[in-house]
Amino acid sequence: MASSLTAAYPWTTSPLISCAPMRLIANASLAAAVSMAGGLGFIGAGSDISTLSSELSKSREIFSKSNFTTSKSGILPVGVGFLLWGAPLKDTLAILSKPENIPAAVWLFAPRDQTQLRDWADGVRKATANKTKIWIQVTSVREALDAVKIAKPDVLVVQGTDAGGHGAAQGAGIVSLVPETIDAVTEHCKTASTTLPFFVATGGISDGRGVAAAICLGAQGVCLGTRYLAATEATIAPGYQDAVLRASDGGTTTIRSSVYDQLRGTTEWPAGYGGRGVLNASFRDHESGVSFEDNKKLYEEAVASGDKGWEGDRARLTTYAGTGVGLVKGVEPAEAITRKVQSDAAKILNETRARL
Amino acid sequence: MASSLTAAYPWTTSPLISCAPMRLIANASLAAAVSMAGGLGFIGAGSDISTLSSELSKSREIFSKSNFTTSKSGILPVGVGFLLWGAPLKDTLAILSKPENIPAAVWLFAPRDQTQLRDWADGVRKATANKTKIWIQVTSVREALDAVKIAKPDVLVVQGTDAGGHGAAQGAGIVSLVPETIDAVTEHCKTASTTLPFFVATGGISDGRGVAAAICLGAQGVCLGTRYLAATEATIAPGYQDAVLRASDGGTTTIRSSVYDQLRGTTEWPAGYGGRGVLNASFRDHESGVSFEDNKKLYEEAVASGDKGWEGDRARLTTYAGTGVGLVKGVEPAEAITRKVQSDAAKILNETRARL
Repeated sequence: MASSLTAAYPWTTSPLISCAPMRLIANASLAAAVSMAGGLGFIGAGSDISTLSSELSKSREIFSKSNFTTSKSGILPVGVGFLLWGAPLKDTLAILSKPENIPAAVWLFAPRDQTQLRDWADGVRKATANKTKIWIQVTSVREALDAVKIAKPDVLVVQGTDAGGHGAAQGAGIVSLVPETIDAVTEHCKTASTTLPFFVATGGISDGRGVAAAICLGAQGVCLGTRYLAATEATIAPGYQDAVLRASDGGTTTIRSSVYDQLRGTTEWPAGYGGRGVLNASFRDHESGVSFEDNKKLYEEAVASGDKGWEGDRARLTTYAGTGVGLVKGVEPAEAITRKVQSDAAKILNETRARL
Repeated sequence: MASSLTAAYPWTTSPLISCAPMRLIANASLAAAVSMAGGLGFIGAGSDISTLSSELSKSREIFSKSNFTTSKSGILPVGVGFLLWGAPLKDTLAILSKPENIPAAVWLFAPRDQTQLRDWADGVRKATANKTKIWIQVTSVREALDAVKIAKPDVLVVQGTDAGGHGAAQGAGIVSLVPETIDAVTEHCKTASTTLPFFVATGGISDGRGVAAAICLGAQGVCLGTRYLAATEATIAPGYQDAVLRASDGGTTTIRSSVYDQLRGTTEWPAGYGGRGVLNASFRDHESGVSFEDNKKLYEEAVASGDKGWEGDRARLTTYAGTGVGLVKGVEPAEAITRKVQSDAAKILNETRARL
C-alpha cells in the first residue's frame, strides 16, 4: 500500500482528479487525456467488454505518440470501470492480464451480490500480479463496510446522490456520506487491524470548489463525471453535449429514475439503482401515466431524429447528468479541465484559510 | 451592509455557525446558548407566534443572567425563523418592533408566493429601523434569484436536500447548489448593480468537516439543524433525541416525504415541500398501501405511548433529521457543539492546505 493516494499512480499530482468510467463516453482518448494532465482517467467498459482490448490498445498508442512515460512498473496509466452485474470476469481477466494491458486500476460497481466484489478483487490482483489497484464504488456507509470486509479495496469511491448516471436510488450527498463513511471504515480497519483504503469522493463535484470541499470532508481524491461530458475527448453525441451545456439548476432539472433505463433497454441493473438525468418529455409522460409502449414509441422516434431528439421542451433522449450540470459552461480539452479544477482547489484552500 | 457576515453580528466569530430555527425545538435556551458561544441562534417561531414574546423574553433573561453584552446597537443577539405560509405578518411586526425584542435577524422560508418575501422583508426592516437583518432560505438557484430580485436579503441561506425537516421535495446537495447559486446571484447583482448578499450553507452539515467544505464551496457561514437536536438545550422529547443518536447511514435510513406532515396534521405547507425524517413504520405502511385512516390510528396510538413511540422496528413517531444524522453521536451543550465545529473547521482548513 502506498503512503498516499497519488504515490500509487506516480504520474499524478495531488489532489488526485479522476474521470468517471462513463460507459460509451469515457473511452481511450478521454481517459488518456486525463492521465496525461496528472489525473487518472478511467475507460468505461461497463457491462460490455467487446471493445476493451481495442480501447486499451488505443490508449497505448496515445501515450506512445505523446512520449508520455509513467514509471518502470509497466502499468498502463489508465483505469477501467466495470459493472459487475454484467461484465464477464474470466474474459475480462484474460484481457487485463496481458502485459501490455495491465491497467493502473479497476473500478468495480454494482455487483449482483457481495461475493462478486471478492471474486473480482482477487481475480484482478492475481491476474496482474498486484499491479492493478482495486477501486470499489459504494453509495452508503453499509455498502462501504461490506466492501471493505469482503474485498479489501485499495480505494473506496464514495458516491453521493448528486452524481449523474447510475447510483443508489436513494442516498445522501457527499457532505454527510463521505465523513460518516470514513469514520465507520476507519473504526473497522482499526479494530480488524487491516489497511485503511484511500477515499475518493464523487457526486455533484463540477469545479475546484467541489474538489476543495471533498478534500475537507476527508477524501484524498475526487472523481468528476458530468464535467467531463463537456470534454473535447468525450465520445458523446453533439445533441447530448449541448443539452449538458444548456442545463442549469440541476437540483430541480435532473432526477434519479429508472425510466431512462427502461426506455433505453438497459434493464439488467440490480434493484436499488437509478440513473440521474435531465428531466425530459419521456419522464414527464411516464409520470402523467402515458403507457410504456406509447412512451417507448415516442422515444424511438426521437432516437431516429438524431441530435434533434435532445432539443426543446419535447426532448426525449437521455441526458444523464449530475446536479452540478449547471456549473458546466463550455467544452474544453480534458487536460484544461483536469488542471483547472486541481489548481482552483489548491487556490481555494489557500484563500479560505486566510479568510478565517 | 457589513463588510463581512460576522461583522453584522459583532459577538460572532468566523466562520459563522448558526442554529436552524427548528419549530418547537429551537427555543430561547438553545438559541441563546448558540449565540453566547459566538454563533447565531435562531428561535423557531415557524407558522405560530403564540409563544414568540415569551421566548424573546426568556432569551433576554438568559443573556442578562450571563452578563452577555453584545454591542451598543441594542439588538437582541438571536434570530427568529418564520414560515411565511402561516405566520401572521402584522402581529409579528408588533412583537418584533418593541425595542427590547428587536432580533439580530429574521429567517424567512416557504412563502405562498414571492410577494410575501417582499412584504416581510420590507415590513421587518421598517419595524426595526433596519436593525434586523433579513435572512431568506432558498432551495434552488431559481428561488435564490427570485428572492434576491424581490426582497434584497442580507443573507441567502442555501439549503441542500440533505437537510432534515422541511425543504424542497426535490433538490441538490450543497456541493453543487451552493457554488451555482453564488455564481448566478453574483452575476445578477453585478448586472443590476445591487449589493451581493452573504451566503450561508445548510443541509447535511454535522461537524467541522462539513463546515470547512461549505466554506470552500463559497459560503461565509453555515447552519446546523440535526446536530443541535442533540444539544442539551434543545426542547425535544427524550425518545426523539435517542432516535437521533441511534440513527446512522442517513442516506438510506432517512427520506424526504409528506407522509409525516399528513400524520401530524401539519398539512398547510405549500406544494413542493417535504420533510426529511428517519424511515419508520408509518412510512413503510404508507408505502405498502395501508390506508391513511389506519395509519393515522396507529400513529395516534404511538403518540399516546410517549417516548416508546420512537422505539424499535415499529417506531411511528416522526424523527425529522438530515442525512448527517449518523455523525451525531452524543448529547452536548450547544456551546460545546458550536465551538467544536467551528474550531474543527479552522483546523481542517489548515491541515488540508498543508497536505496538498
